[in-house]
Amino acid sequence: MKQISYIKDIDTWRAGFSFSIPINIRFSETDMFGHVNNVSPFIYFEEARIEFLKTIGLFDDPNNDEGMPIVADLQCDYLQQMFFGEKINLYVRVDHVGNTSLDVHYMALNEKGEISLTGRGRMVYIHPGTGKPIQITDEIKQALLEK
Amino acid sequence: MKQISYIKDIDTWRAGFSFSIPINIRFSETDMFGHVNNVSPFIYFEEARIEFLKTIGLFDDPNNDEGMPIVADLQCDYLQQMFFGEKINLYVRVDHVGNTSLDVHYMALNEKGEISLTGRGRMVYIHPGTGKPIQITDEIKQALLEK
Amino acid sequence: MKQISYIKDIDTWRAGFSFSIPINIRFSETDMFGHVNNVSPFIYFEEARIEFLKTIGLFDDPNNDEGMPIVADLQCDYLQQMFFGEKINLYVRVDHVGNTSLDVHYMALNEKGEISLTGRGRMVYIHPGTGKPIQITDEIKQALLEK
Amino acid sequence: MKQISYIKDIDTWRAGFSFSIPINIRFSETDMFGHVNNVSPFIYFEEARIEFLKTIGLFDDPNNDEGMPIVADLQCDYLQQMFFGEKINLYVRVDHVGNTSLDVHYMALNEKGEISLTGRGRMVYIHPGTGKPIQITDEIKQALLEK
Repeated sequence: MKQISYIKDIDTWRAGFSFSIPINIRFSETDMFGHVNNVSPFIYFEEARIEFLKTIGLFDDPNNDEGMPIVADLQCDYLQQMFFGEKINLYVRVDHVGNTSLDVHYMALNEKGEISLTGRGRMVYIHPGTGKPIQITDEIKQALLEK
Repeated sequence: MKQISYIKDIDTWRAGFSFSIPINIRFSETDMFGHVNNVSPFIYFEEARIEFLKTIGLFDDPNNDEGMPIVADLQCDYLQQMFFGEKINLYVRVDHVGNTSLDVHYMALNEKGEISLTGRGRMVYIHPGTGKPIQITDEIKQALLEK
Repeated sequence: MKQISYIKDIDTWRAGFSFSIPINIRFSETDMFGHVNNVSPFIYFEEARIEFLKTIGLFDDPNNDEGMPIVADLQCDYLQQMFFGEKINLYVRVDHVGNTSLDVHYMALNEKGEISLTGRGRMVYIHPGTGKPIQITDEIKQALLEK
Repeated sequence: MKQISYIKDIDTWRAGFSFSIPINIRFSETDMFGHVNNVSPFIYFEEARIEFLKTIGLFDDPNNDEGMPIVADLQCDYLQQMFFGEKINLYVRVDHVGNTSLDVHYMALNEKGEISLTGRGRMVYIHPGTGKPIQITDEIKQALLEK
């Protein structure tokens, strides 16, 4: 497997995931090259990330006073082509939590258990009113890392 | 050409359009059948409709007190397949204005001047605050039909 | 309820559906007006239509000699706004089968059992090689109507 | 500005671009947070990358014997929110060409000349028939870097 900067050891990395959602590839998400378009994985990352954040109450109420995470960057490595009709599971976990940001990792597995996609992206925890980064509380930090 | 309920005479209908925008077909809007996906024309209709409404000041300020048009229904007839790389012009005009609604017609022409798509859809003119249909003034009616 | 040309009696029409799939509204399918974008229902129609066709073997093998149905037109009536997080079921059925075409009807129900969307569209049964319309066999006709 | 791994000095980096295309943000590419959805930049990257590759004849004929570049990874840094109605220019250039792969960089500028997005991604040059990486000729290498 090719070298990916955010993955030291692929087996350890893969074993670190537990939360996942099934991805239903839509026909409109394919392209004329016959496979899933390169843009579509970012749709799946977003869907999985939101489901993940919901489980710890960080997506439910964007108008609260306690902060919300927003996307600062995103990246995807395409390891296997994906096709319409494939059953994909998309795994998400928080790799690292800093004072005001967190690093989210993504992994897509196909039906054979092969890794189709890997990805990561930093989120910044901001105050919805001011838009400024705010401190992530220990409680939230723990919830993010334990999931 | 097949019979389309909202087109009496195709030549007269076609001649009724003057406003158009060029459509830039995106690669991600194709699908694995090799052509532009059936969903994509509705993206183009929306883009053209908004550009059209902007020209008469009906999209600029959704928070005004004077009403805004919202989509009540949409339809599209697929006359020719469309392909990536094709240069498409999408025409829009208002076919009919009632008391509180308007009927918008759409036509896509390819580089050969052939009709690729026809379409229509009703918009209801509502008050942004209440969400209730409101009367379209004579001034707006005239602007919509003259364009 | 407003008058919709392809629905005579809404209760009878609604009772005619049995096949449905759950629709998972994606965040990227919303728009800045805060609800599901007007284009997105056509993504859902396509997804449901393909799942429906698969159940009677009309999507599995596009390279067969026995014909495949392609979309000739599509329309959607927006009865209720849809929002991110809503659980939508999308129903599909064949309303009518002609010699070389079929009329497909669509209905989206929200969690309260209210109709969010209605829709329809004609499909033409073509030979994949020639692209020409071909006769729908009695066997397929029966399968389409019985589902 | 925050640290981005693929940008050493932002002014030098920015000055390295010359090819760009205007991006027309579509209404359906916004989301309920009121801005352009996080997925949409990858649509724009693809559009700009294809236009760039076309100018040196690397997208015209995917069935040639001389190889075609495919996407191996993609990443995007979101520096400024983007909004519907904004006029964005998307710049593309090849940062580095190896034996069988190239590194493509992306930069989006808004109307004020501010950087909204930066990005990069590796493409692998493959033989369309075998799918295997093949050598990038000196001629193509030169064309890629000179653009």
